[in-house]
Amino acid sequence: MPHFVTECTENIREQAQLPALFARVNQLLADSGLFPLGGIRSRAHWVDTWQMADGKHDYAFVHMTLKIGSGRRPEELQPVMEQLFACIKAHFAALMAQRYLALSLAVEELHPVLNFKQNNVHALFR
Amino acid sequence: MPHFVTECTENIREQAQLPALFARVNQLLADSGLFPLGGIRSRAHWVDTWQMADGKHDYAFVHMTLKIGSGRRPEELQPVMEQLFACIKAHFAALMAQRYLALSLAVEELHPVLNFKQNNVHALFR
Amino acid sequence: MPHFVTECTENIREQAQLPALFARVNQLLADSGLFPLGGIRSRAHWVDTWQMADGKHDYAFVHMTLKIGSGRRPEELQPVMEQLFACIKAHFAALMAQRYLALSLAVEELHPVLNFKQNNVHALFR
Repeated sequence: MPHFVTECTENIREQAQLPALFARVNQLLADSGLFPLGGIRSRAHWVDTWQMADGKHDYAFVHMTLKIGSGRRPEELQPVMEQLFACIKAHFAALMAQRYLALSLAVEELHPVLNFKQNNVHALFR
Repeated sequence: MPHFVTECTENIREQAQLPALFARVNQLLADSGLFPLGGIRSRAHWVDTWQMADGKHDYAFVHMTLKIGSGRRPEELQPVMEQLFACIKAHFAALMAQRYLALSLAVEELHPVLNFKQNNVHALFR
Repeated sequence: MPHFVTECTENIREQAQLPALFARVNQLLADSGLFPLGGIRSRAHWVDTWQMADGKHDYAFVHMTLKIGSGRRPEELQPVMEQLFACIKAHFAALMAQRYLALSLAVEELHPVLNFKQNNVHALFR
């Protein structure tokens, strides 16, 4: 945890520069102090078949879900999520100015109990 | 919002005719009056590695998730979701009559607060 | 139902042996008595673009979500989910001993009401 899951339309595969976004997002989440670096996993799911709105223009979208462990307090999360979305908007600002684009980010809390993990990466950062 | 997310097995990539389904779904959701056209994003995630049930037949499935903003009333949503699933069943009826197939649709509400967006497509439809 | 959804990084596409995992998972879930065999759908979503942690090593991850119908009792689910994660850890034990790897599993309950399905596979197992 956390998981930063990105669905991105194929028509912006290059322009979206997701590897650069993921580097920024992982750093921001780790720097927040809320999440251990060794558990942060950002990834893309490319979308080659879609229709946005009426489908009549070359629309693109990036929908992002941040899955986190349950139980963090809203007042802790709110400022970090605002920083995260500000980072995302800055990353996409040039592209947003050039073409049709929709960005969205939503947080999902993982099940508080039925939730299991094993991770040998954490040991690197201790 | 909303997001119509479709997981579809590769063995029905052509027959599922997802672009035609997405055109119908986007229209139905916009016509419901509950969702603005400019925010509707339908997409496929193709599945090339799966096992359904015992894996002993040429099974196929399409699992659909409609992610919507929180706070709409159940009595508003219920009839629209029933229409949506009726539309989906009609779309797949011929295929369902010919082969093993499982269709499923579930609604998910996005986080009521930790939920952010930026979208320059809405302006087209104002 | 249920849906066993696996996100797996491409750098372990062969070694993860997901078809073998799916066969074990489907059997375990069916044997639990909680889920009908004809509704069990395991699948992979391969991830070709990602960053885990600082991105400085050849990290891999497998994140698994079990989506189930709502309303099962926690005391019924807990032992089955523990067995499921034990099965997953055993499947990946050799790989975990060899490389950086993170495994995670979380349960999600589907919407209790806005949830629809049609499935002609169940009839095979009656």
